[in-house]
Amino acid sequence: MTEPAPTRTPLSPTPHSTPTRLKDRASTDRAELDAILDAGMLCHLGVLLGGKPVVIPTTFGRDGDTLYLHGSTGAGNLRAAMTGDVSVAVTHLDGLIYARSAMHFSMNYRSAVIHARPVELTDPQERLHALRVIVEHVAPGSWDAVRSPSKKELAATVVLALDLTESSVKIRTGGPRDDEADIATGGVWAGVLPIRQIFEDPISSDDLDPGIEVPEHVSSRSTVPLVVR
Amino acid sequence: MTEPAPTRTPLSPTPHSTPTRLKDRASTDRAELDAILDAGMLCHLGVLLGGKPVVIPTTFGRDGDTLYLHGSTGAGNLRAAMTGDVSVAVTHLDGLIYARSAMHFSMNYRSAVIHARPVELTDPQERLHALRVIVEHVAPGSWDAVRSPSKKELAATVVLALDLTESSVKIRTGGPRDDEADIATGGVWAGVLPIRQIFEDPISSDDLDPGIEVPEHVSSRSTVPLVVR
Repeated sequence: MTEPAPTRTPLSPTPHSTPTRLKDRASTDRAELDAILDAGMLCHLGVLLGGKPVVIPTTFGRDGDTLYLHGSTGAGNLRAAMTGDVSVAVTHLDGLIYARSAMHFSMNYRSAVIHARPVELTDPQERLHALRVIVEHVAPGSWDAVRSPSKKELAATVVLALDLTESSVKIRTGGPRDDEADIATGGVWAGVLPIRQIFEDPISSDDLDPGIEVPEHVSSRSTVPLVVR
Repeated sequence: MTEPAPTRTPLSPTPHSTPTRLKDRASTDRAELDAILDAGMLCHLGVLLGGKPVVIPTTFGRDGDTLYLHGSTGAGNLRAAMTGDVSVAVTHLDGLIYARSAMHFSMNYRSAVIHARPVELTDPQERLHALRVIVEHVAPGSWDAVRSPSKKELAATVVLALDLTESSVKIRTGGPRDDEADIATGGVWAGVLPIRQIFEDPISSDDLDPGIEVPEHVSSRSTVPLVVR
């Protein structure tokens, strides 16, 4: 189950994953789902806890048709997540839409929402594979450069696998979609304020041995010089 | 209920809002809750739909002790949210923690999670106030500059108020927290890759009347010149 799938399964909409409105913003393109997940560093995991929904920000990784989550064996929220259905959302905010009327203010975004029943991994090799996928998802190039998990660390870690089949993708791009009457009236600025997430320059740990340089797989991620206006 | 509260209520932890681990990352400072919410443009709303948790990215606004959400009367998810308990998370990702061992990779973040039972607003003045709060939260200075909601638009809009009392705040800052043995072994770079969300330069709508300049309340938000390395 945790082996990379040779092919991508097309998205299978269900009553949970089918948006009830704004169908033009929904996409069934599996490649878009993968791209949204792979570009995300954080997901929001929705679980049932005492009969109530609870949303938890956490890290994740993807390999083929499988999403991996991990957590501490001491975490009540994640243990609860393992017992039933969960929902996982990954959202990128790409811009704010300034419209000519209050109700047409909006956002450009890419979002993926997954509905699944997580399976707790027990096979040592599968668990290690999943942890590697999670670390490499957030910090590519790091797994082989650092110490591997110890037996004690592994014993304290819950690893979950979620199937990506029941997923929905919503994407909004472009400018404001104002009413014709408001466009005709004119006089109001309308447009997009683009938003981007950037990596700044890496900061070495205080207790780092002198002479250890920032590795290329880290330094190469800082793409924008930070010059505040 | 929608009037600005004269004072802030201290956070009241409950079994839902009390983190079960990593207590050092939890904060009960009400000012921090407000700061995290006010800096967020997007929240993740967890609702129960057919007995399963569903996570939805959406916009919001805050006024005093009240969080406001809105949606279309046609949105099944939001209608479901109105019937029971919900969870709302706002998360800022501030950096990636590169550690000397795989299991100490982490993130710097600020997150707020609210547990509440939303109340649907019916009073026209309260509804208008809430919509203003939501628009001004995302796009400060815009409400008075654009056309107000029409009766038809208002009739198609659900407005919800959530009490902020049952909330939890978690904040992680600083560098990696490696095991002493791994620090002693040395040889591996460790540190933080800071992350920031920036506004790029505004893009005017294609159908904008010539001569309408980008207003200062929009242009002043672009703080970083975008010069890709």
